[in-house]
Amino acid sequence: MKRKGVKFERDLIHALWNEGFAAVRAAGSGSSSYPSPDIIASNGKTTIAIEAKVRERLPLYISGEKLRELVMFSNLFGAKPVIALKLKKAKWRFFEIDILEKTENGYKISDKTFPLGKELGEILDKFVQERL
Amino acid sequence: MKRKGVKFERDLIHALWNEGFAAVRAAGSGSSSYPSPDIIASNGKTTIAIEAKVRERLPLYISGEKLRELVMFSNLFGAKPVIALKLKKAKWRFFEIDILEKTENGYKISDKTFPLGKELGEILDKFVQERL
Repeated sequence: MKRKGVKFERDLIHALWNEGFAAVRAAGSGSSSYPSPDIIASNGKTTIAIEAKVRERLPLYISGEKLRELVMFSNLFGAKPVIALKLKKAKWRFFEIDILEKTENGYKISDKTFPLGKELGEILDKFVQERL
Repeated sequence: MKRKGVKFERDLIHALWNEGFAAVRAAGSGSSSYPSPDIIASNGKTTIAIEAKVRERLPLYISGEKLRELVMFSNLFGAKPVIALKLKKAKWRFFEIDILEKTENGYKISDKTFPLGKELGEILDKFVQERL
């Protein structure tokens, strides 16, 4: 990921700690021979595995392989898989897997799905509610 | 960590996956402003936060601050804090926090405590047993 992407990922790590989640960036996501999300965070009850994407504009495309790796990792780790998308001049938005749009070779987030994305506090609250 | 240390950490990641744990190396451990272990691994039931050390010989010294950070992170994340020590020509050995020896400014693993270290399979089995 480019330098600007790393800065935005650090902002996200910071926001997660502020929400009471211990969060780390994973090293060598993409270069490791094992699947790895970009960020893992947990408050001891809810754990999330985040694939973080920074883009100028929509749509965001995600390959089927990348998504399968995220889901496989999350299932084994006991985490909720989440796509985080930072568009230019916008806040991070968070998308659960089941709302992504299917394409021929994978998935996307378009103008149509983007409004379904949640802010960080909203998606963390949703996960907490699901445990009750 | 030096290149050889990274290779040994990768071996450890590999061993964790072989034991059925999803494992990732954390990026920028040491450089981030937030506490971070070197490795986090989970099988969805047991989660461990590993501080991994590669040394030519004993003793291994760990600062009090480093240990407090590992324990603080682990408590929030819901992980078991573990020190992993790779000595020259030896396998990785795993140490729970409560068996470390206190020094004036922190903790150590010496000839006396080293035999209390467990192999990977042993310590994972112990954590699984504790949950039953």
